[in-house]
Amino acid sequence: MEGQKLLINGKRLRETLEKFAEFGKTENNGVSRLSLTEEDRMAREYLRESCEELGLSVTYDDLGNMYATLEGTEGGPPILIGSHLDSVKRGGRFDGVLGVAAGLEVVRTIVENDLKPRFPIIIVNFTNEEGARFEPSMMASGILSGKFDKEVMFQKKDVNGITFGEALKKIGYDGEESERLKEGKAFLELHIEQGPILELESISIGIVGCVVGMVCYEWTIKGEADHAGTTPMTMRKDALFTANDIITAIREQLGELDAELVYTMGRMNVHPNIHTVIPDSVIFSLEARHKDPAVMAKVEEVIKQVHESFSGHDCKVEINKLWGRDTVMFDDKLCDTLEKAAQTLGVSSKQMVSGAGHDAQFIASYIPTAMVFVPSENGKSHTEVEQTSWEECENGVNVLLEAVMELQAN
Amino acid sequence: MEGQKLLINGKRLRETLEKFAEFGKTENNGVSRLSLTEEDRMAREYLRESCEELGLSVTYDDLGNMYATLEGTEGGPPILIGSHLDSVKRGGRFDGVLGVAAGLEVVRTIVENDLKPRFPIIIVNFTNEEGARFEPSMMASGILSGKFDKEVMFQKKDVNGITFGEALKKIGYDGEESERLKEGKAFLELHIEQGPILELESISIGIVGCVVGMVCYEWTIKGEADHAGTTPMTMRKDALFTANDIITAIREQLGELDAELVYTMGRMNVHPNIHTVIPDSVIFSLEARHKDPAVMAKVEEVIKQVHESFSGHDCKVEINKLWGRDTVMFDDKLCDTLEKAAQTLGVSSKQMVSGAGHDAQFIASYIPTAMVFVPSENGKSHTEVEQTSWEECENGVNVLLEAVMELQAN
Repeated sequence: MEGQKLLINGKRLRETLEKFAEFGKTENNGVSRLSLTEEDRMAREYLRESCEELGLSVTYDDLGNMYATLEGTEGGPPILIGSHLDSVKRGGRFDGVLGVAAGLEVVRTIVENDLKPRFPIIIVNFTNEEGARFEPSMMASGILSGKFDKEVMFQKKDVNGITFGEALKKIGYDGEESERLKEGKAFLELHIEQGPILELESISIGIVGCVVGMVCYEWTIKGEADHAGTTPMTMRKDALFTANDIITAIREQLGELDAELVYTMGRMNVHPNIHTVIPDSVIFSLEARHKDPAVMAKVEEVIKQVHESFSGHDCKVEINKLWGRDTVMFDDKLCDTLEKAAQTLGVSSKQMVSGAGHDAQFIASYIPTAMVFVPSENGKSHTEVEQTSWEECENGVNVLLEAVMELQAN
Repeated sequence: MEGQKLLINGKRLRETLEKFAEFGKTENNGVSRLSLTEEDRMAREYLRESCEELGLSVTYDDLGNMYATLEGTEGGPPILIGSHLDSVKRGGRFDGVLGVAAGLEVVRTIVENDLKPRFPIIIVNFTNEEGARFEPSMMASGILSGKFDKEVMFQKKDVNGITFGEALKKIGYDGEESERLKEGKAFLELHIEQGPILELESISIGIVGCVVGMVCYEWTIKGEADHAGTTPMTMRKDALFTANDIITAIREQLGELDAELVYTMGRMNVHPNIHTVIPDSVIFSLEARHKDPAVMAKVEEVIKQVHESFSGHDCKVEINKLWGRDTVMFDDKLCDTLEKAAQTLGVSSKQMVSGAGHDAQFIASYIPTAMVFVPSENGKSHTEVEQTSWEECENGVNVLLEAVMELQAN
């Protein structure tokens, strides 16, 4: 099979995406398709049927990960294309499913052109990427890569007390461990950017060089709950005022580090949260992300310094590192292949990083991996208004197809 | 009846307070006696029986306010002593009940000494001072003084959907409007300070000159919820960062106004409150209190200025004045009488203000009124650890008795 110039069927891709969007469709044209629900099962069945119609063999492993294989004439490690079919609650119609539909469309194009790939091509659907029903996110790819322990993960419960293991069995996707993904020539994940950069720069394709490292800390400030009307200002231990000072200090110091550093206090809970009572407790999260480990080290230094500067304060300040992850670099050669594919197709592209986590970051630990981003309108994701134009979806899948053809040729 | 030197029975006062503390007693020695509950009814029955044993006539009005009258030889407007028997959830054993028990102990002392007062003395229990079950607080005294509308108040519901009117009827304290408190020579309310000043200054008695004026504003900051990992700092509309800047500005400017000004952001809600999402909304309360209307006017000016300085900002900032109240001045002559009483008894006293609201502030609109504070350990109230020593309770009631004797004499 030579690397000949093929293009996917954009109309068919759109129809596939629209079909998937029916499973868990919300009133506002979004999708609620939490992992291992009936909606997820229906989407999986549709994927399975679509793949079997193409003549692919479909298997699933003990984690519910699905693999649809187009055999290659030479065998050997497969080229993998995929992402996830689950969504957050009231999420969008592109996050995850685009990467699975991309695999389906690539294989359909190859099959309808009667091309015989040298190496197998496998469409992959990873279970529970979002972690919206069962925490943590990227659960199944995390187990595959040895990051998470299966026994622990299978006991994770949803809000109704149902475990991951029970839910997996219920939808009939509890397969054999022997079916797990073990090797690959390459794993390619197409995903919406979930950020504003490609749209703002009018670029169609992001070649993702890495998933940036991050840390997440929880800050706990303990003061004293006193009457807001009767306690003089000098006698207060106001946890909110202290939190205010800490956040100001953090913002000032992190703001000086690097223009690409992002940091967010997304969660804050005030207790007792009554207008007539001085807060005795404020707990807030601080997460920060950057690709350069040196910058991340400085972030942790700032956190330590700010924490220390508030020791001996009226309020007691505690920090707890909830988690951190190092930057995951994707495969350079694969990134080059993807960039070249975009150039061949005459589609604008740029190298960028992923601030969000993806299954690809775990798979990268044992299979050469790379990602392609397409623009998210207004940078929105995890919301019903999530939007990527059909044209940009088509561009992304064409880049994947071109790269797959290149990988087949070499 | 001449102003002779009488002292109350401290042991009996303590037993009365301990008896009241049984109604709604919590595991941690506090009290949950929400208005118009079975616990409140039992406390009311105990008050009624205690008063009837003394030969007082006990009535209640259409708001459930209770009046126990010791007749006077000359008749005329009565001297009123009282407060409230209801508590907040998991509140303390002194807030409110001390002022009612004080009335009972004053009358017991007068009766056991076989003294015949010239003017009637009435022990008062105001319904629903706390507003913990049915908002607003000081509901019944507010209706008495024309501040609140009875029809509206009777429709106020608790968390179970039961209206104030239904609950009042259920405990059997829905009396006649004709029984309402119409006039008085004086109303005296003994209360715990609910603040730290008396204890810190080692003073037994606070002569309360006023209930300070206050304003309460709600600030709403609207930003945009974007992905915390993929949205560059320069492209964010982070409602929490803007709230942080606003709170800093408010604190700086209010901090310069007056040392006695108190201001609190007690309530703050962040949305969507997820560590990976930039907050799109922060709503927080700002309340401030000071006795001087000129200072309060400056507070409102600061609020207006800070609000204006954030117009045209990335985030939309709205302010909403939830309510305000003017400073309520108590009766100068009554305050003098109370101060003299403390001096006569050789008990330390100081003039102070009340930062908290009390029934007295509404009654003051049509009856000469004053309040006495006794120390709150660590300034704590509305909590199970609320504490005032028996000795300080006794001091407070003796000051009331001495003042009542003085009022009877003149």
